[in-house]
Amino acid sequence: MTASTVITNIGSLVTNDPARVDPRSDPLGLVADAAVVIEGGRVAWTGPAADAPATDNRIDVGGRALLPGFVDSHAHLVFAGDRSAEFAARMSGRPYTAGGIRTTVAATRAASDAELSANVGRFVAEALRQGTTTVETKSGYGLTAADEARALRVARRHTDETTYLGAHVVPPEFEGDPDGYVALVTGEMLDACAPHARWIDVFCERGAFDGDQARAVLTAGVRRGLTPRVHANQLGHGPGVQLAVELRAASADHCTHLTDADVDALANSATAGGPGTVATLLPGAEFSTRAVYPDARRLLDAGVTVALSTDCNPGSSFTSSMPFCVAVAVRDMGMTPDEAVRAATDGGARALRRTDVGTVSVGARADLLLLEAPSHIHLAYRPGVPLTAAVWRGGRLLLDHQPPAQT
Amino acid sequence: MTASTVITNIGSLVTNDPARVDPRSDPLGLVADAAVVIEGGRVAWTGPAADAPATDNRIDVGGRALLPGFVDSHAHLVFAGDRSAEFAARMSGRPYTAGGIRTTVAATRAASDAELSANVGRFVAEALRQGTTTVETKSGYGLTAADEARALRVARRHTDETTYLGAHVVPPEFEGDPDGYVALVTGEMLDACAPHARWIDVFCERGAFDGDQARAVLTAGVRRGLTPRVHANQLGHGPGVQLAVELRAASADHCTHLTDADVDALANSATAGGPGTVATLLPGAEFSTRAVYPDARRLLDAGVTVALSTDCNPGSSFTSSMPFCVAVAVRDMGMTPDEAVRAATDGGARALRRTDVGTVSVGARADLLLLEAPSHIHLAYRPGVPLTAAVWRGGRLLLDHQPPAQT
Ligand SMILES: [Zn+2]
Ligand SMILES: [Zn+2]
Repeated sequence: MTASTVITNIGSLVTNDPARVDPRSDPLGLVADAAVVIEGGRVAWTGPAADAPATDNRIDVGGRALLPGFVDSHAHLVFAGDRSAEFAARMSGRPYTAGGIRTTVAATRAASDAELSANVGRFVAEALRQGTTTVETKSGYGLTAADEARALRVARRHTDETTYLGAHVVPPEFEGDPDGYVALVTGEMLDACAPHARWIDVFCERGAFDGDQARAVLTAGVRRGLTPRVHANQLGHGPGVQLAVELRAASADHCTHLTDADVDALANSATAGGPGTVATLLPGAEFSTRAVYPDARRLLDAGVTVALSTDCNPGSSFTSSMPFCVAVAVRDMGMTPDEAVRAATDGGARALRRTDVGTVSVGARADLLLLEAPSHIHLAYRPGVPLTAAVWRGGRLLLDHQPPAQT
Repeated sequence: MTASTVITNIGSLVTNDPARVDPRSDPLGLVADAAVVIEGGRVAWTGPAADAPATDNRIDVGGRALLPGFVDSHAHLVFAGDRSAEFAARMSGRPYTAGGIRTTVAATRAASDAELSANVGRFVAEALRQGTTTVETKSGYGLTAADEARALRVARRHTDETTYLGAHVVPPEFEGDPDGYVALVTGEMLDACAPHARWIDVFCERGAFDGDQARAVLTAGVRRGLTPRVHANQLGHGPGVQLAVELRAASADHCTHLTDADVDALANSATAGGPGTVATLLPGAEFSTRAVYPDARRLLDAGVTVALSTDCNPGSSFTSSMPFCVAVAVRDMGMTPDEAVRAATDGGARALRRTDVGTVSVGARADLLLLEAPSHIHLAYRPGVPLTAAVWRGGRLLLDHQPPAQT
């Protein structure tokens, strides 16, 4: 028998529980003056505190808000070095020729396994302190069979959500021969990487991989048992989103430049049989490159499932902060606070085709974020302010900044 | 004799020291591989670590960046309640008629001294965790002589930088009689408040106090020994900035809507004899109201001294995060990372006419922020990420998130 614990005196509980959600009036399935019972690492009960069953232990959280831990479904954490000088030059209008992704590739290749693993661990811990309990991470700074496989092996020490992104950029060794590089990505490199990855991804964009190349990469991955997700339509219009829907990718990521047909394809993807393709929006990238934000409102109004993620990477979006993404999505992407919080929790879970995270409902993994605030609205209302009071993952209290009263 | 301590192995030190600053190439007076000696709560020495003098104690900060603690020269911390429902309605495009500043005034009047003081203390501590070592705070949610004086007495428990802002808004009791309220603000209320304040402020804006009323408020305060600062040109063009310069205010705050004449007045204010009028920009307000940002680039190019502050208040900008303000200023206001960091430290000090804070130079108060990062650029490069590793105020280590190696 495992001990049961009730977390009680929750001022406002975000459940995302389908049994409680009203898509029009209450997209978060809120419960006021709530309690949550956890047992064996899972959520065993949720509801009004007054109705909570008897448990072995009791934690009074003093009226604070509780929500599912954030699910960050898009991050690039396996790298070495940083590119702060390049960032400063970009933001200062100064030319900077030495930088770019090749800097990170060179530093990553030169790093030891231990250094890379320590870096991933540091970012995962940093994200956890900000309430992220599930994080995806990609390869893509190795760009040789050995370096990409190593990146995924390192990532696997920290998360089950590993994505093979050999097709991140054509490396220097294949300059002028992108098809030669695609042959490597779909051949020897795939053989080396597939055992360590759940997902296959490609950067489908003018200047990176075109529609045919992206299709070749994704279908090769699917044949090896990987599920597709696509970097699509970030810098301009292109075939990425349509390809993602056609190949039943779990997610099309970025979605900044969309035609009406792209929006329609995403909106209809779920009804074509299967779980559909989520639009994962990554406001950190637009924030840190002074680019135009994606139009979340247009997607939501069309019925598209939207996720928010950090895109944490040293080049274009070096944030690990899901609260920051929520705040920017509300300010600049037309989302309501409720929609943004939903997208950062349940949305991310859908983008990873996970049903065990992203909600606080019976049977879900007890991944919980306690805020130093009375409501989830404060994530957007108090931008930049660290609001984490406590974090549980799998029912274990991992972080406790503001000790709740225990009795 | 007091013990001396060297903080060494500083990867990058921001000094803002006039002796080290080059306005064109190095506005922060940076020192690489640096050390700082503190003694008796003051900075006793700065320079390359290799040249540091012998000291009693030694703290090795492992290559992290050190900078002056942030000086938040504009905040409204004496209040009760929050307005998250109003925020959510605004960001969701829903009407919300019950809200506004009157909600906060009612809640503040109803709160006990102890409640108000606890709130201020909580915000000051929250700001400290984000690296703010000096914070100004204003009255303005009491709007009676007794309630305004109480707000300032409470504020004084937490900071010396207290500002009398009776002229925040015309309260319900004086609806239709703004001049009657100005008479109170410049009479009985001023008598009650002046002993507890250093500054006098007025919200000079269409719908609040016009130029004549603002002049009456500020000159009355000056006669009582207070120094002016002005909420000016936030929502539209108006006389606030020109009035601030004319009355030699320490700062004109917001400066969102400026004519060329306003910019010229600010740029020339310092040469008119005396320290001049700083333009204090408050990006949190534009962020949280989806308003157009002030143009920091225009001000800097004209030679205006710029400060960045939070405007922390429950209505229009409920952030206490100076790092967030730095990141937004770089993204959306045309500031370089160096300029934004300078504005958040030395700029704030100038807006408060303080020479003992805002720099890391010999004789300055040892108010120091250690970052979990190798450079100050990361404050903009890593938006939303809590980067505080340690904070010293007056030479005392108050916060130590990431214990530096002590030897
Ligand atoms: Zn990405
Ligand atoms: Zn203000």
